[in-house]
Amino acid sequence: MKLKLIIAALFLSVNVFAQNDKETLKTIYSQSLTNGKAYQWLDHLSNQIGGRLSGSVNAEKAVQYTKTELQKLGLDKVWLQEVMVPKWERGEKEIGYFTTLGKQVNVNICALGGSVATPNNGLKAKVVEVKSFEELAKLGTSVKGKIVFFNGAMNPELIHTFEAYGGCSKQRYAGAYEAGKLGALGVIVRSLNLRQDNLPHTGSMGYLDLPNNQRIPSAAISTNDANALSAALKTDKNLEFYFKQNCKQFDDVLSYNVIGEITGSQFPNEYMVVGGHLDSWDLGDGSHDDGAGVVQSIDVLRLLKESGIKPKRTIRVVLFMNEENGLRGGKKYAEEAKRKNENHVFALESDSGGFTPRGFSFDCSEANLNKVLSWEPLFKPYLIHYFEKGYSGADIGPLKNDNIVLAGLRPDSQRYFDHHHAANDTFDAVNKRELELGAATMTSLIYLFDKYGTSNISDIKEIKN
Amino acid sequence: MKLKLIIAALFLSVNVFAQNDKETLKTIYSQSLTNGKAYQWLDHLSNQIGGRLSGSVNAEKAVQYTKTELQKLGLDKVWLQEVMVPKWERGEKEIGYFTTLGKQVNVNICALGGSVATPNNGLKAKVVEVKSFEELAKLGTSVKGKIVFFNGAMNPELIHTFEAYGGCSKQRYAGAYEAGKLGALGVIVRSLNLRQDNLPHTGSMGYLDLPNNQRIPSAAISTNDANALSAALKTDKNLEFYFKQNCKQFDDVLSYNVIGEITGSQFPNEYMVVGGHLDSWDLGDGSHDDGAGVVQSIDVLRLLKESGIKPKRTIRVVLFMNEENGLRGGKKYAEEAKRKNENHVFALESDSGGFTPRGFSFDCSEANLNKVLSWEPLFKPYLIHYFEKGYSGADIGPLKNDNIVLAGLRPDSQRYFDHHHAANDTFDAVNKRELELGAATMTSLIYLFDKYGTSNISDIKEIKN
Repeated sequence: MKLKLIIAALFLSVNVFAQNDKETLKTIYSQSLTNGKAYQWLDHLSNQIGGRLSGSVNAEKAVQYTKTELQKLGLDKVWLQEVMVPKWERGEKEIGYFTTLGKQVNVNICALGGSVATPNNGLKAKVVEVKSFEELAKLGTSVKGKIVFFNGAMNPELIHTFEAYGGCSKQRYAGAYEAGKLGALGVIVRSLNLRQDNLPHTGSMGYLDLPNNQRIPSAAISTNDANALSAALKTDKNLEFYFKQNCKQFDDVLSYNVIGEITGSQFPNEYMVVGGHLDSWDLGDGSHDDGAGVVQSIDVLRLLKESGIKPKRTIRVVLFMNEENGLRGGKKYAEEAKRKNENHVFALESDSGGFTPRGFSFDCSEANLNKVLSWEPLFKPYLIHYFEKGYSGADIGPLKNDNIVLAGLRPDSQRYFDHHHAANDTFDAVNKRELELGAATMTSLIYLFDKYGTSNISDIKEIKN
Repeated sequence: MKLKLIIAALFLSVNVFAQNDKETLKTIYSQSLTNGKAYQWLDHLSNQIGGRLSGSVNAEKAVQYTKTELQKLGLDKVWLQEVMVPKWERGEKEIGYFTTLGKQVNVNICALGGSVATPNNGLKAKVVEVKSFEELAKLGTSVKGKIVFFNGAMNPELIHTFEAYGGCSKQRYAGAYEAGKLGALGVIVRSLNLRQDNLPHTGSMGYLDLPNNQRIPSAAISTNDANALSAALKTDKNLEFYFKQNCKQFDDVLSYNVIGEITGSQFPNEYMVVGGHLDSWDLGDGSHDDGAGVVQSIDVLRLLKESGIKPKRTIRVVLFMNEENGLRGGKKYAEEAKRKNENHVFALESDSGGFTPRGFSFDCSEANLNKVLSWEPLFKPYLIHYFEKGYSGADIGPLKNDNIVLAGLRPDSQRYFDHHHAANDTFDAVNKRELELGAATMTSLIYLFDKYGTSNISDIKEIKN
């Protein structure tokens, strides 16, 4: 084919595509909003199975359930990928209170994931409040024999609530590590919640290389109780705090990533991944974190089929195990992809809740981003405006290389941390339409990327042939 | 001043302003998110007062409460504007069921606002289902002696849920009027709700010029019950529906718009209005509709003061009475403005719920819209992307003329009709941050309009002087 003809063909395709793409996105959104399956899958995952902590019976039920549902979709391939995961159990409901000026004030606490238990009868000690690791470092070994109370609050001025979360999640993860090194007896951490309420929010913590005798119990306290404790400490430095938890870490157990694929019709060796994580914390039923991402990702493949789209590239849904306390599923998937020399060109994760989608953040080269930005007008009728460089998702992170486009769905984040890792992360907090709009938005991006790729090398080759 | 100098001065101001505006918006948003009052006012309005139907004791309590709160803000002027409003009472909780194949199925219904009662012992009749006025017209007088069941559903494919609402709100408002003319005995209307649930949603209906003997009772039925009734009708055409309601219309009573103002420092005779409506339906506590708009509007004036902004124009907060079933407050305000020859240059209404703000729709000339669009980049850091021509708000509508800019806050609308006019329009459904982001977004627009106007005539005059 002569160059002029190629250019003419390209020009023609662009125009034809433009109209097709508008119609295709309309079909995808209409299918999702009138015939979506995400909400009913989430209902089962949340209400019939419930919280799905790695290594738990529920996590295995979720593996079997989603595998069966993927099989029902008539995909080209569905399989389980083995992965060893940590197993930690909360045990009995935790108890916490403080005594001040002859009065006992009960507080709402929960063990942080990965924490050791308190002694059988609980732990009682004086409290030192800090708001940062810098403050803790200044106190040094004077915290010995005490409970360190990390009371750093999420910054309400940040519009992106994930930034506020990032700003103080370190005290949850490493609080016990830093305080344990200094000889503290225990750690209480203000819940990572922008709202004032009575719910403690769990989440992972780690002891890293600390020897066993420095591994101290660590718990989250609700924002209301954190304020009450802080206020009480102002008038009574000798206040004592008591808490009791009998959580336990077991040996690693076998679990699975659940994977399904539509094999590409033209470039079967170019892989595109869409996923969320199947495990959740144990306090709620993990509807937003990340039941929503799981069911949206499954529905992406179903919506492609229902909308009559036959992908050129291989589209895989990956339901990752163990994002919350180990990321073993994400690491395992990337490891196997590398071992098999699979060419992953794109990965999209939904792990920011099932709220109204606002757009995507992209972790990729400038050239790839510019290509993606050219699709922005197609999304405007669906009120999808946000296309920015940024973080994609924890599970797909290990796939990162110079060529891949990593993307994260960005739903409205204002309510997310009201529910995150807490007992109110439940099905009733998810709105059906918001969830479905997210699934349609993800499907649309997958459709466009499959069709146009980014570098266009494959597509130009295709036209030449 | 010479022309060149004027241009130079303008150019300089634009640059200086740009930096100032960015900083000012940052201050406004930070103030709202860390020190906002909207949420605590809403708590009082919703939980201490409750539903505020026009002419009710609660509506009058809301008038007094908001007047007092406005006075506490140290505004230049606070007053009540008299307005006569309709008074309708629901009476006892409504009862509804249908009998089919020897079985009684209870349903969730509520009288529509303005409806007459059923006879004391209720009303029982056969049912005819229609989905539009066209279907009803075809049936003609064959509906005589029957209950007409309007089962048109909101279209889930529309992304803007208000469009879906507009698509079938006529059956609620005029269903009894049209069916009454044909001799039907009563009307049951599918609730205007995109969700499947058990809540009936009320709302206004009208008999217009119908003589009293054709005024038939009209009630809303929940979406679940509408589906059940429709399914039952498919197998049993002789099904009978029973309902009982003893609502009543009283004579008009005296009520008030609540108004406060900051008098403009340079153009006191140019008025800018920000408002919402103080009345609500009676089933819930009217937190989203329109407690949210009320408290956001009040906070606009407080946030201006707290952010150190001294408006050049007069900024009025107007809390309109009787939007829901008469619009008397909105009409009265416009009437008085006209009578006093007050030059209203701008009006902004928040009456679409207290959800995350997405932007504004504008009802104004193209020239004015283009001016407003130039401010769009200032809003981007706050994820405010939506600036389109469109509907503003019912209460400010009567102010419309060729020169005024009418604007409506556009929050995320996906959840709005889950709560609209139903028993779950309650305080717990409003998220504090979402409400505060709305108040800050409104304040920012008011700040920019006050500063730059639209035609710039006043501002250029100012520079010349």
